[in-house]
Amino acid sequence: MEENKFSIIAKNAKKASKIIASLPTDLKNQALKNIAGALSLSKDEILSANKEDLENAKKLVESGEISGSTYNRLKLDDNKIRDMIQGIVDISNLEDPIGKILLRRELDKGLILTKKSCPIGVLGIIFEARPDVISQISALAIKSSNSVIMKGGKEAVCTNKTIMNIIQRALSETEGFPQNVLNQVFTRDDVAQMLTQDKYIDLIIPRGGNKLVKYIKENTKIPVLGHADGICHIFVDESADFEKAKNIIIDAKTQYPSACNSVETVLVHKNFSRIEDLKTELNSAGIEIITNPKDWHHEYSDKILSWKVVESLEEAIEHINEYSSGHTESIVTENKNNAVIFMNTIDSAGVYHNVSTRFADGFRYGFGAEVGISTNKTHARGPVGLEGLTIYKYTLEGDGEIVKDYVEGKKKFNHKDL
Amino acid sequence: MEENKFSIIAKNAKKASKIIASLPTDLKNQALKNIAGALSLSKDEILSANKEDLENAKKLVESGEISGSTYNRLKLDDNKIRDMIQGIVDISNLEDPIGKILLRRELDKGLILTKKSCPIGVLGIIFEARPDVISQISALAIKSSNSVIMKGGKEAVCTNKTIMNIIQRALSETEGFPQNVLNQVFTRDDVAQMLTQDKYIDLIIPRGGNKLVKYIKENTKIPVLGHADGICHIFVDESADFEKAKNIIIDAKTQYPSACNSVETVLVHKNFSRIEDLKTELNSAGIEIITNPKDWHHEYSDKILSWKVVESLEEAIEHINEYSSGHTESIVTENKNNAVIFMNTIDSAGVYHNVSTRFADGFRYGFGAEVGISTNKTHARGPVGLEGLTIYKYTLEGDGEIVKDYVEGKKKFNHKDL
Repeated sequence: MEENKFSIIAKNAKKASKIIASLPTDLKNQALKNIAGALSLSKDEILSANKEDLENAKKLVESGEISGSTYNRLKLDDNKIRDMIQGIVDISNLEDPIGKILLRRELDKGLILTKKSCPIGVLGIIFEARPDVISQISALAIKSSNSVIMKGGKEAVCTNKTIMNIIQRALSETEGFPQNVLNQVFTRDDVAQMLTQDKYIDLIIPRGGNKLVKYIKENTKIPVLGHADGICHIFVDESADFEKAKNIIIDAKTQYPSACNSVETVLVHKNFSRIEDLKTELNSAGIEIITNPKDWHHEYSDKILSWKVVESLEEAIEHINEYSSGHTESIVTENKNNAVIFMNTIDSAGVYHNVSTRFADGFRYGFGAEVGISTNKTHARGPVGLEGLTIYKYTLEGDGEIVKDYVEGKKKFNHKDL
Repeated sequence: MEENKFSIIAKNAKKASKIIASLPTDLKNQALKNIAGALSLSKDEILSANKEDLENAKKLVESGEISGSTYNRLKLDDNKIRDMIQGIVDISNLEDPIGKILLRRELDKGLILTKKSCPIGVLGIIFEARPDVISQISALAIKSSNSVIMKGGKEAVCTNKTIMNIIQRALSETEGFPQNVLNQVFTRDDVAQMLTQDKYIDLIIPRGGNKLVKYIKENTKIPVLGHADGICHIFVDESADFEKAKNIIIDAKTQYPSACNSVETVLVHKNFSRIEDLKTELNSAGIEIITNPKDWHHEYSDKILSWKVVESLEEAIEHINEYSSGHTESIVTENKNNAVIFMNTIDSAGVYHNVSTRFADGFRYGFGAEVGISTNKTHARGPVGLEGLTIYKYTLEGDGEIVKDYVEGKKKFNHKDL
């Protein structure tokens, strides 16, 4: 039965998570190096599996079932495989996020409280066509001592299977590395099963389009880390510098229009002196301006933006707090005071002054690796690095201490940080 | 319509949350001091409202609808009001958890990233009969710059209304303090409404029994912070010191049997030399020992515990990882190595060595205030203080920087922590 099969995977992943939780840093890094080595020895095997996927995908493009851009994202070449491998090496070089001492406190003489970072447990990660994601997620899971169950796009199934086999071989040759840390499933039904396994799976991370993320958020009780929409705003204030406004909007809209951190709505202060010039420049850059959109929540994912002239900074802030998806917003202004008000009052993961919204990215922030970008209000927000795959636990070490003595006043806490 | 009424409360709470988010520490502390002052001037008003609740409750006790212990928790007196007020003063003296700089990094010359703690937004807090909770939650919300919608126990409705009125009066006399930060609702239907308001409410914190928490977790998409069960374990290892084992188990079971951090299951290593003596001592302390429980998940909330003799440390760890609710577990052993294995391998919020599980508490940990105890695997775990009511946002300040220049290699990130 499908259900039992999935439960067994999830249960074994949970068991493995308890073992990998206390694996030494060296062993985890060795596993990553072995994976990088195995992948670079198996380039041909990967490219040949990818060719199979591409042939199937070609038919789907012809029949209109998948888009040309999906086809392109599916395609691996030597450069992409080299980047995949480099990504794993980079993660092996990052600091271990597990076992960090976050607090060490003497509650009383000889009674020592320690708060230490630890893994979350089992991650469920669902992603779309790009097959280079599988090695990246595997590396992130290993480095953060989490087990993971992955479901990739169905178009990439041959490539994903092949990459996973190579990774599993490398792990089985890494002495002391536990089994069942990395798991892959393939069907839509597996995803449905995954969403019900709140006993075993601790966090779901969907990496993909709006529809996928919404479907997942609506169908699970497991915490979900990610973002459905990226409705980012730029506000051109009264005192904005024309060149900065122009460059920032063009960058935020055209540099990668389908990215979640590209701008969707531009708000312009009515007293900004060169409103018409700005529109002309944006049009010249190939941007279509919609001055009367039906829906201020719309994510164009194209060189189109919604445009609104506002009466004041306050109106801009109100509009953003109403329609933003909480991802990233930027103010263009030479008025430092207005910038501070904007950044304090807007409730989004990123609030910028005089820079493009496209900077919202884990690599640009210097995190070294990115799990995704979160618009959640709890756990992790904005670009999420390895730290977002950790939580903490408390240890308390003593010599027979009991609470009764403290309640009755025989002993007293001193709460001294060490 | 009930639904519209609640939506308006939630929407206004959200608006207020944007204002209180950037309120200065001094103003928040002034508000807390004004509340403390107003409550101490209104003792008689509170006690007379409480008397009304108690008279109604008495009938419910007689008809068997509520228990004697619920009646007792409902009852306020001078001491309890004094403690309530002291609790608010204590929170005013804690460090402001908002606006802390968590990271400051130069991405490039003049391009400065700052990660700063900020409030979550709107909290929904549902609690049972104790009316002293309302002032505590109000103070926690104000100090952490969150709006809150509270629903207290129906038995305490007169007392809760009166306390809330006094608090609101004090806030209205605090110049610059926004309206609609604190909100109270009263009916079961309001709770049902609250659970659907994921547009406005960011975090639900249920404070109460297992049933309440389970109901809430099963009926909302909003993140829930708390714990349904407290199935805590103590493992008496082969080399345990008899006196320590005895004292720790007696404390963990009898000092406050209905607390979530009291022990439910004792596991004893088969080679521990004084198993029978230990049972005799526990029986003498009034503890009933169930050696063959039907359900290892059972929370007795009474002087009863499940008892199992295990073959090894490994069996104890496996049992705990299978049946624990992830709250708190303790090992009693003189073998330091076994203690380390236990603390590394058990996946619970608290893992202790030679101390009572009853230490799992925000005040005992020195947090100064406790929002609750969480068995979640994300956001906050274990006893949660003010920090658990915060998240962070990123600001990025520059002078017209665009991503294109970095992608094309015209500029390079330097990622220098400041």
